[in-house]
Amino acid sequence: MATPSMHLNLFIMGCGHHRAAWRHPDSAAERMGDIGYYEALARTAERGKFDAVFFADGHAAGNVAGGPLWYLEPLTALAAMARATERIGLISTVSSTFYTPFHAARMLASLDHISAGRMGWNLVTSMFDAEARNHNYTAMPPHAERYARAEEFANTVLALWDSWADDALRFDRNGMFADPDRVRPINHHGEHFLVDGPLNVPRPPQGRPVLFQAGASDQGRDLAARHAEAIYAVAYDLESAQDYYRDIQARVAAAGRPPVPIMPGLVTYVGATEEEAKARQRELDELLPTQDSLNQLSQFIGQDCSDWELDAPVPELPPLEDFTGPKGRYATILRIIECERPTLRQLLGRLAAGGGHCTMVGTPESIADEMQRWVEQGGADGFNLMPPSLPSSIEDFAEQVVPVLQKRGLFRHDYAERTLRGHLGLERPGA
Amino acid sequence: MATPSMHLNLFIMGCGHHRAAWRHPDSAAERMGDIGYYEALARTAERGKFDAVFFADGHAAGNVAGGPLWYLEPLTALAAMARATERIGLISTVSSTFYTPFHAARMLASLDHISAGRMGWNLVTSMFDAEARNHNYTAMPPHAERYARAEEFANTVLALWDSWADDALRFDRNGMFADPDRVRPINHHGEHFLVDGPLNVPRPPQGRPVLFQAGASDQGRDLAARHAEAIYAVAYDLESAQDYYRDIQARVAAAGRPPVPIMPGLVTYVGATEEEAKARQRELDELLPTQDSLNQLSQFIGQDCSDWELDAPVPELPPLEDFTGPKGRYATILRIIECERPTLRQLLGRLAAGGGHCTMVGTPESIADEMQRWVEQGGADGFNLMPPSLPSSIEDFAEQVVPVLQKRGLFRHDYAERTLRGHLGLERPGA
Ligand SMILES: Cc1cc2nc3c(=O)[nH]c(=O)nc-3n(C[C@H](O)[C@H](O)[C@H](O)COP(=O)(O)O)c2cc1C
Ligand SMILES: Cc1cc2nc3c(=O)[nH]c(=O)nc-3n(C[C@H](O)[C@H](O)[C@H](O)COP(=O)(O)O)c2cc1C
Repeated sequence: MATPSMHLNLFIMGCGHHRAAWRHPDSAAERMGDIGYYEALARTAERGKFDAVFFADGHAAGNVAGGPLWYLEPLTALAAMARATERIGLISTVSSTFYTPFHAARMLASLDHISAGRMGWNLVTSMFDAEARNHNYTAMPPHAERYARAEEFANTVLALWDSWADDALRFDRNGMFADPDRVRPINHHGEHFLVDGPLNVPRPPQGRPVLFQAGASDQGRDLAARHAEAIYAVAYDLESAQDYYRDIQARVAAAGRPPVPIMPGLVTYVGATEEEAKARQRELDELLPTQDSLNQLSQFIGQDCSDWELDAPVPELPPLEDFTGPKGRYATILRIIECERPTLRQLLGRLAAGGGHCTMVGTPESIADEMQRWVEQGGADGFNLMPPSLPSSIEDFAEQVVPVLQKRGLFRHDYAERTLRGHLGLERPGA
Repeated sequence: MATPSMHLNLFIMGCGHHRAAWRHPDSAAERMGDIGYYEALARTAERGKFDAVFFADGHAAGNVAGGPLWYLEPLTALAAMARATERIGLISTVSSTFYTPFHAARMLASLDHISAGRMGWNLVTSMFDAEARNHNYTAMPPHAERYARAEEFANTVLALWDSWADDALRFDRNGMFADPDRVRPINHHGEHFLVDGPLNVPRPPQGRPVLFQAGASDQGRDLAARHAEAIYAVAYDLESAQDYYRDIQARVAAAGRPPVPIMPGLVTYVGATEEEAKARQRELDELLPTQDSLNQLSQFIGQDCSDWELDAPVPELPPLEDFTGPKGRYATILRIIECERPTLRQLLGRLAAGGGHCTMVGTPESIADEMQRWVEQGGADGFNLMPPSLPSSIEDFAEQVVPVLQKRGLFRHDYAERTLRGHLGLERPGA
C-alpha cells in the first residue's frame, strides 16, 4: 500500500449506538452480560482487519429503563476478548478522576501482557456527579481540577510503565530473576499522588500501552496534544472535522511531537441501495418510544414539543443566542435541522444514535466515497465506528464497506503487525 | 457421597510456593507473563475437580532478584482463566485498603458474569508500607484502622451487589430494559466511604461472589466471623488447626451464622515412595542460594548463622521469651526445629516453601491419610494447596492424591454444581 492504511476502530456499546437498538425483536438484549457476545463482536472486527475495539466507560448506572448502558466492566471484559482474538487492538477507557495511577498502570500493563501488546488506554476525566458520588466525592470536581489531576495521573502512569527496563528480566537460574538495578522506583510525590513504585508488573510488551484521548475543551485538547498517541473526535461534518484536525495537530506540533492519528466518530447505515440504507435507519428510529424522546427533546430545546407532528418537518427554532439552556446540545440540534431538514421522528432518531457525531447513510460505495473524502481532505486519519445496531451494523460494514476501501488502497488487506502500536504506525517507546 | 466432599483450592504462586522453584532447569520462569501458563494450571486443577484456583495479591514489586512475586494482575488474569475453564471457581484477592468499594464490587460482579457464577473474593487489608506508598499513603495505616475500613468496605460492596434485584432485568422491548424500582441506590455515607450506588453491573449470577478471608488477629477473626463464607488458615500441625477451627467456628456461631468451611494451607511433596517424595523436596531445597537464605535466617533469629554446617542439625536456639525481635516468625522456627529436627538446609527449605503452613511429604496414600485425619478430627474442611513447584506438584497431586481421596469417598468424583457457591455448599443469598 502506497499511502498508509486508514484506521478503523469499533466502538462497542450495548446493542448498538442507537438508543432503541435493543428494542428490535432480533436484538441481543438478553446477552449484555454474556462475554461470548463481546468476543464475537471483536472477532467480527478482526475479520474486518480493524485496528481495535474500544469500550467507553462510566461509573453510574444511569437510566436503566431506557436500555443497556453499562454491564460488564471493560478491563475484565477485554481480558477475555484478548484471548478470543489474535491481532486486533483492545482499548479501554480508564478515568483519571476515579482510579489511582498505580491501579491504572498495573491493570493496563497486565492486559498488555495478556494480549501480547494490543492494549490501548482512553484517558478520560469523567463527567457526572452521579459517578463522582460512587467514588467518595460529593460532586464532580471542577473541570480544571480534573484536568490538573489527569496531567499528573498520565505522567505517573507512564513513569510506572517505564519503571522496569526492557532488559530487566534475566531468568538466570544461578543468579537473578530480574536485575534490581534495572527496576527503579519512581518516587513520585506530587500534588495529587504519592507513588513510590516501581510497578509490580514488568514492562508491557508495547513499552507503553497506546494512549488515546478525546478532549474537546481547551484543557482537553492540550492534554491530548501533550500525551495522546491517537485521538477520538466528534465531528458533525467534514468542515468541523477539518477545524478540529487543524487545531489539534497545531497543538501537537507546538508540543514538539509528530502528527497524531485522529479518528472522528462515525455512525453508518449501509444498504445495497440508498433506499435500503434509509429503511434501516427508519426501522430503528421507529423503535424509539416517542413519548420519552419527545420529553427529552422538550428539555433540550426548552419548549414543549409533545404535540408536534411526528412525520412532519421540525418547525423553526429560535437562534442559539436566544437559547438560555445548555448550548452544546442545542447547537447540534440547530445544525442537524439546518443541514438535514429532518422530520421530527428523524431528528429524534439522529439524537438517539451518535448525537453530534457524523452519520453516513447509503451504499458501500457512497459511504466509502465520503470516508475517502474526509481522509483525503484533512478531516480524519480514520474513523471510530459507532454502529447503530450490533452485531448487524458492524457485520454490514465489515463485509460490504471494508472491501471497497481495500480495493481503493485506503485500508489494509491484512494485518502487517502484531501490536496496536504497529497497526497505528506508532513507534515503540524506549525505557 | 454420604459426607460432603472436602474442599480443595489451588493457591497459584509464580513457579510454585518454594522460593527456589523458578531456579529449576525445567521451571516455567520465562512464562510468568504468559496467560496460557495460568490457564493451563486452572485446567489441571479443574481436571482434579478442585473447588477453585486462588491468587494472592500485593501492591509492591518486592525483591525482584529473588524470583517472580507478582506479574499479571489477578482480576485481569482470572477473566482470561474463566474463559479457559468451565466449572472451577476463581478467587481473587482484593485489598480493602487500596481499592474503593465501587471498583471492587464492580470488577468482582463483572467477573461473576464472565465466569457464569464462579467468582470469589479474598478480602485482605494488606500489610506493607511499600504497598501503601504506591497508593497515596506515606505508610500503612494502623491495623485497627485497616480493619475498621475493611468492615465498612465489605458492607458497602455487599450492598452494591444487592442494589439490583434478581428480577430487575426485563428486556421488555415495548417497555423497560430494567425496572428502575428494582434497581435502588444504597446511599452509603459512612466513616470512610461515600457511595450512592446503585452498581452499574446487574446482580451477579451468584447473588454475591463468595467472600473469603484469612484473618489471624482478633480483629481479623472477628471480621471473618461476621462476613467470611469460607476461610483460609495457617496451621503448622493438626493441633494448631484444631485450635484455630474451634475458635473461628465459635466466633461464627456467636455472630449468628452457620459454620463456615475452613481451609488451612498445605504444601505437599508426593512420591511413589517416601524416599522419592523426600528427594523431590531436597531437589528444591538444594536450589536455594544458601548465602541469601542464611542472611535472611540470621535476621529472623537475631544471630549470625552464616558459618553453620548446612547438612548438620540446626543447633539449639534460645527460647521465645529471650528473643527480642519479631516473635511470630521466630516461634514458627522454634516449632519446626522442635518437631522436625531438621538440618540447616532443610530448615532453610521449609522457610522458603510455605513458612508456617503445614507440609506433608510422602506417598499418595500417606498424604491422603493425613488429610483425612485433619478433616475427621476437626482441623479442616479442606485445604488450600500451595504446591512447592508449578505445574509439576499440582499435576502430581491431581493425578495421584485426588484419586485416593475420591476412592475413600472424601472428595467429589465430578462437579455436581456449576457455581463456586455450589461447590462450597453455600446458599445463594437473596436480594
Ligand atoms: C469517542 C468518545 C468517547 C468518549 N468516551 C468517554 C468515556 O468513556 N467516559 C467519559 O467519561 N468520557 C468520555 N468521552 C468524553 C471525553 O473524554 C471528553 O470529556 C469530552 O469530549 C469533553 O471534552 P473535555 O473533557 O475536554 O471538556 C468520550 C468522548 C468521545 C468523543
Ligand atoms: C492463604 C492466605 C493468603 C493470604 N493472602 C493475602 C494476600 O494476598 N494479600 C495480603 O495482603 N494478605 C494476605 N494474607 C494475609 C491475611 O489477609 C491476614 O492479613 C494475615 O493472616 C494476618 O492476619 P491479620 O490481618 O488478622 O493480622 C493471606 C493469608 C493467608 C493465610
